[in-house]
Amino acid sequence: MTRGFVSLVGAGPGDPELLTLRAVARLREADIVFYDALVDRAALAHAPQARFAFVGKRAGRPSIEQRTIETLLIRHARRGERVVRLKSGDPFVFGRGGEEALALAAAGVPCEIVPGVSSAFAAPALSGIPLTHRGLASAFLVVSGHAPEAWRPALQSLPPGAATVVVLMGLGSRAAIATALLAGGWSARTPAAVLLSASRREAHTWRGTLAKLGRADVDSGAPGVLVVGATVDVAAQLERLAAPAALSGGAR
Amino acid sequence: MTRGFVSLVGAGPGDPELLTLRAVARLREADIVFYDALVDRAALAHAPQARFAFVGKRAGRPSIEQRTIETLLIRHARRGERVVRLKSGDPFVFGRGGEEALALAAAGVPCEIVPGVSSAFAAPALSGIPLTHRGLASAFLVVSGHAPEAWRPALQSLPPGAATVVVLMGLGSRAAIATALLAGGWSARTPAAVLLSASRREAHTWRGTLAKLGRADVDSGAPGVLVVGATVDVAAQLERLAAPAALSGGAR
Repeated sequence: MTRGFVSLVGAGPGDPELLTLRAVARLREADIVFYDALVDRAALAHAPQARFAFVGKRAGRPSIEQRTIETLLIRHARRGERVVRLKSGDPFVFGRGGEEALALAAAGVPCEIVPGVSSAFAAPALSGIPLTHRGLASAFLVVSGHAPEAWRPALQSLPPGAATVVVLMGLGSRAAIATALLAGGWSARTPAAVLLSASRREAHTWRGTLAKLGRADVDSGAPGVLVVGATVDVAAQLERLAAPAALSGGAR
Repeated sequence: MTRGFVSLVGAGPGDPELLTLRAVARLREADIVFYDALVDRAALAHAPQARFAFVGKRAGRPSIEQRTIETLLIRHARRGERVVRLKSGDPFVFGRGGEEALALAAAGVPCEIVPGVSSAFAAPALSGIPLTHRGLASAFLVVSGHAPEAWRPALQSLPPGAATVVVLMGLGSRAAIATALLAGGWSARTPAAVLLSASRREAHTWRGTLAKLGRADVDSGAPGVLVVGATVDVAAQLERLAAPAALSGGAR
């Protein structure tokens, strides 16, 4: 019996080795894969039988309307196909996975969520920055930097140092975010980092202080994650302690 | 050339299908695996050549001192072994991975971080709860519930609804956390959930409101994640819209 089914699958931060076993299993059985801009092409190689449809957005401009994506998922599932919706990171973290799950449920199409490694964690981790660290931080706040109303309510009231701050899609708003934290009483010397293209071959990191974050020279067009907080210094400590090659994000 | 090396590997939330490909690759080559209490035994099956050492903590009581674990990792790497330190969730999120990375770097032992799927995301996702959702939340705060000083600074100043709140290791402090949020002006009707043994066969969910969270009957001794915020209602909407079988966390 063939039955249409949609898997909303997290592809992880980019490096195809950070796909989960379940993501690979769903790709292997997929009839069609709808994928986003930041999904690595190597991930698609796990789906030998599938057709591929790019439904990504770039720089905030939707190339395809969200509602159109939902209509496509429903249409293909109703044909009895195994549909994979492959999203960068985790589907339920700034991925609009909730909207797609609701649309599918409303249409009576069965679906599942396959969690993925979010770049909110993986980008800092691969740069040697823990989000929590004994004596430095026991909480972290993740916001989207795409619009002030998305980050301001949570950020502007956060007491200095009460949580490590992680900003996804925040390259363009790094100056506004730094200003807001400084206005909230955060020290200008708070460690800060910008993590570009994390987990990819072209990954690189800027590290400095909150005072310098706004002017950090990182306008590369690459996907970027901002981190602000004392745990950023763990990466500096690791570098001082070890040879540069000793801590690696996968290369051995 | 044999060279000792330590991989600090995230095992994901429990379900062994949520291991990453890189985690499996490191297990496959491991000479010895040091694993935590919440790691599923099925994950260890990926390491056919390895010896296994349980170094877990239960209910906060360290069965082995953190410093002893670090000493063991260093000792085995110096013998030229490929060492995997397998941690529940992600090694850099409440996993003390930063401490272990620093200890290894100080000893001159090369190490890498292999990010994993954190239960901070996966537990809500597998219950149909997105951490962010258009119109409901564009930020989330993750705290550890193990001690008031760990969660109070970040939680008590968070404006009502400014972020979805996720509490790891928070079952025992759910009453204190609910009281703190209510004192901060959060509505008693704010949706709340307790996610027990997420991604495991025995997983189950309590859903209610912030007013009822403190008295939620969930004292099971299982690992639990608390979620407070409007996005918890997405799970209720999904249930209302779909047949119960339509949204599943992996079973098809």
